[in-house]
Amino acid sequence: MIYSPRHMKWWGWGNVDTTFDCDAHPSFWPYAKSQLGIEREAHPIPLVPLDSVRLPEPIINHRFLAELRSTMHGHQICDSRHERVVHAYGKGFRDLFRLRRGSAEGAPDLVLYPENENDVLAALRAAADHDVVVIPFGGGSNIAGCLERMETHRMAVSLDMRRMRRVLAVDSESFTARVEAGVFGPDLEEQLNALGMTLGHFPDSFLHSTLGGWIATRSAGMQSDKYGKIEDMVVALRLVTPEGVLATRSVPKSSNGIDVNHLCIGSEGTLGVITEATMRVHPRPESRLVPAYLFRDFEGGLQAMRECVRRECMPSMVRLNDPDKTTLSLAFKPPSSQISQAVNKIFKGYLRAKGFDLRRSCLMLAAFEGRNGDVARGSREVGAIYRRFGGISLGASAGKSFESTKYDFPHIRDYLLERAVTTDVSETSTVWSNILPVYQAAIRAIRTGVLESGVPPWAGCHISHTYHCGASLYFTFGFMQELGHEMEQYLKVKRAAQQSFMDHGATLSHHHAVGTEHLPWLTADISPLGVRAVGAIKQSLDPGNNMNPGRLRPSSDPFTEWSRIGSLSSVNAKTKATCS
Amino acid sequence: MIYSPRHMKWWGWGNVDTTFDCDAHPSFWPYAKSQLGIEREAHPIPLVPLDSVRLPEPIINHRFLAELRSTMHGHQICDSRHERVVHAYGKGFRDLFRLRRGSAEGAPDLVLYPENENDVLAALRAAADHDVVVIPFGGGSNIAGCLERMETHRMAVSLDMRRMRRVLAVDSESFTARVEAGVFGPDLEEQLNALGMTLGHFPDSFLHSTLGGWIATRSAGMQSDKYGKIEDMVVALRLVTPEGVLATRSVPKSSNGIDVNHLCIGSEGTLGVITEATMRVHPRPESRLVPAYLFRDFEGGLQAMRECVRRECMPSMVRLNDPDKTTLSLAFKPPSSQISQAVNKIFKGYLRAKGFDLRRSCLMLAAFEGRNGDVARGSREVGAIYRRFGGISLGASAGKSFESTKYDFPHIRDYLLERAVTTDVSETSTVWSNILPVYQAAIRAIRTGVLESGVPPWAGCHISHTYHCGASLYFTFGFMQELGHEMEQYLKVKRAAQQSFMDHGATLSHHHAVGTEHLPWLTADISPLGVRAVGAIKQSLDPGNNMNPGRLRPSSDPFTEWSRIGSLSSVNAKTKATCS
Repeated sequence: MIYSPRHMKWWGWGNVDTTFDCDAHPSFWPYAKSQLGIEREAHPIPLVPLDSVRLPEPIINHRFLAELRSTMHGHQICDSRHERVVHAYGKGFRDLFRLRRGSAEGAPDLVLYPENENDVLAALRAAADHDVVVIPFGGGSNIAGCLERMETHRMAVSLDMRRMRRVLAVDSESFTARVEAGVFGPDLEEQLNALGMTLGHFPDSFLHSTLGGWIATRSAGMQSDKYGKIEDMVVALRLVTPEGVLATRSVPKSSNGIDVNHLCIGSEGTLGVITEATMRVHPRPESRLVPAYLFRDFEGGLQAMRECVRRECMPSMVRLNDPDKTTLSLAFKPPSSQISQAVNKIFKGYLRAKGFDLRRSCLMLAAFEGRNGDVARGSREVGAIYRRFGGISLGASAGKSFESTKYDFPHIRDYLLERAVTTDVSETSTVWSNILPVYQAAIRAIRTGVLESGVPPWAGCHISHTYHCGASLYFTFGFMQELGHEMEQYLKVKRAAQQSFMDHGATLSHHHAVGTEHLPWLTADISPLGVRAVGAIKQSLDPGNNMNPGRLRPSSDPFTEWSRIGSLSSVNAKTKATCS
Repeated sequence: MIYSPRHMKWWGWGNVDTTFDCDAHPSFWPYAKSQLGIEREAHPIPLVPLDSVRLPEPIINHRFLAELRSTMHGHQICDSRHERVVHAYGKGFRDLFRLRRGSAEGAPDLVLYPENENDVLAALRAAADHDVVVIPFGGGSNIAGCLERMETHRMAVSLDMRRMRRVLAVDSESFTARVEAGVFGPDLEEQLNALGMTLGHFPDSFLHSTLGGWIATRSAGMQSDKYGKIEDMVVALRLVTPEGVLATRSVPKSSNGIDVNHLCIGSEGTLGVITEATMRVHPRPESRLVPAYLFRDFEGGLQAMRECVRRECMPSMVRLNDPDKTTLSLAFKPPSSQISQAVNKIFKGYLRAKGFDLRRSCLMLAAFEGRNGDVARGSREVGAIYRRFGGISLGASAGKSFESTKYDFPHIRDYLLERAVTTDVSETSTVWSNILPVYQAAIRAIRTGVLESGVPPWAGCHISHTYHCGASLYFTFGFMQELGHEMEQYLKVKRAAQQSFMDHGATLSHHHAVGTEHLPWLTADISPLGVRAVGAIKQSLDPGNNMNPGRLRPSSDPFTEWSRIGSLSSVNAKTKATCS
């Protein structure tokens, strides 16, 4: 069977036929209104039609095109309006806001669909020979600005990897799978599951992202607590660069100098294109259990998580919502939600009796998967710890509604953008002892940032991934747009959140990549010499700066450029539609 | 308390007052004789006295020295014969063989003892300013040729890190410890244990190696199955380079582009000096259990190991000896050894009755540590799997003799070198499905290599570290020396072993580093572009090539230089003793 993932909506999350069903979440808009001080009704702002979207006049490098056509078929080379718009951006706030306003200034001039490694190599060599920019493209779900073209003086092509989607070999004795990098999450799992295996990597973008994208951005799946982050799963890889192929060996561990796998992982398309990787895979779990708990407060939930680390009994996933994220989760759940039912039932009596203050209570979801016995024992052991720290079980069935909606959350942003509400996220990680300071500082910074434009802020956080020495904090924020100043308003809040991470010793992103969105903080995060070393790798493998230029290399005045990105006034007035 | 580790013997393993007690291992020499075709008795060849060891005429860069003296105290700057000889080499065969023959041509001109990061920075800046070579030195236990000076036209200093030995901070909430990199294994554990913590890193060289050395060489401890390899333990680090300090943040995981920690880990002193690292630490285990098992053959033991991976119940350490390593282990054990007693007892009846062929049987040691309940359950579960694959328990007490002698094994080489027997090791790793092919090929290659010089070979292997997708194979070999051709004879065997790893898809080393010993295979292991990228990092952080030059950068004809290293004829005839 040929699995054929479609591109997401050019203007939002999900495929064209998936819509956010407001009726299925009847409490959501009333909750948003009450939180954000919105009085009007939920009438959507109409979308600019695709035909009206402004595209830059394409730059055509004819010698490059001629060389391409000597190696690729016509159906691999696309310059249609739709293709260019779809490949213009990822799905960050700046991306979607501009598209909704009819601007696709970041669009490439051409889109290529390689079907094997030779195609990639030929495209990169032609690009290097003729001074053309190449932007590797996986699922296009990135929200850190990894995909927008940053240059306008050279031809730019988007290299869409989706046709390289095969699991090439599974070594079931060694628990490894060699996989082409363009495969999407569901396709990969389907192919592995048929052989009794799973990769175990389930990021929120799972439906719309690829193996190569995960590796290039150091992605984290929901169950990283058990299976690790993507960088922990890579056994070997092949990176095609303008200078040729860099390849590593399939060995579990090595002492062969600087680990070359780690030069490619996280390279965000700046060195070349990851064409395949050999990944650690696991036998499919026998069973899975997702119990939910309610904690009296955020601190109690954190202490319970950390105690699980100390006792070496971590679930395969833990999500601890802060009080605001807890109320949002409850507002978002479908009316039939098991959690809602369970929580409501408990709410009505037991909680009050137990002295829970619902404005401070925190919802925790924990997942356990593996062998039946291990799941039973693990969930028992963790449950006992949670109870010890004041957690109240909402029952194992409550997790089912989480399971059924776990990939739906990003749809909220489109729904709200349509209603002149800006929402976005910032996430980071820090060590256990620093979680609360980072949490408090970021929430404060976000709220202060929003309040500066005179509207009420909404800010929430959940602990999304846990590790031996710390965890990831995932902040979500939203506010009514200040018409005519939407981008400045967003930038103020985003900058405040990111700066608070830096000021408190956290990292610029736990799993969303640097892109353009987090670039101004790179030097503070990895130090000037770290930036220099990364630049040197780039220079050695991509001397013509053909690969995704403008990333991983902050300028001397990084905030000026950062503020400029996505400013609608910067859109070239002369851009016009192109056809093919 | 100031812990003061001494330097190892200048001519061998262990401190001056530790000797290999042959009487404690009465079966060992008879076993070696019978295996290696030796007929003479065990009379040691006398050692060249230290005063007769040839040293290169020191190159003194006076401007460098003057700058040094403006920042360091006199007691931090040493040029004595003893200091120079001790810092001339690590402890590989080539190193020790040359020292025993009275040649220390690899010696530095000066030894520096920095006491803080500023000292290191000042030394590296002075070296860069005045074109002096710096070779970072931890415990000096490396056996891959990481420490020998490779240039004779510039002044070379050895930077001995042992005085930077403090645990600077323990964050017991986050399970991290910030530690100066010059700390030795026992000192580090003593400091951490006092706070209820352990790093959990116990390489064979534990007594004589440092944190910085472990990180710079991507070391693996015996219990890496539980705690990970050293690269899995590093949370953050500081690397002093001639260009300044590269520093990363203490965060559990990040998506901040290429992981800069991993540019420093495994850099083998070629970029700078790791001055401190923040490491994952763990609560001290409540209990520890080291049962021993006997398997019918190597394949059975391997299958049992892999089944433990599949069932997600890996011990914290597993060592599976092949039949030759099993007989060596039994010959090496003290007469009172619990294993010997247990094995002998069983040998006498049960094994024969069970149809065990002692020429094929394989000794397995497994360690379990952690919470009492986990240790009990884990060892039960693993024991059941082992039995299913034909393993026979030798009892939990049998592991005690392993525990008591686990750091003694390297002494064998000195004992044998004194008796004109060459022994050395080569180790690698590969995926589970490839273990037997790599094992068989390497044993065959080693034996063939030895037989070419007309003496009987001894070659054995143990599986030393296991991972989800594979394991490390650790080969030991020995043979009678061909007088006058000892080095050529060694090189033939070493080359055969390493080449067999490459030919069968394994890596050049699992935990001993590249150094000079494995350099010719680096390009095959990480591909030409991998080598180029590593070179670019070096160029960016150490533009003057001051830091440990000659490593991680194979020449176009790497085997020629490789064969030359340690050839006694290459020793400058004009070298003479220096005094201070």
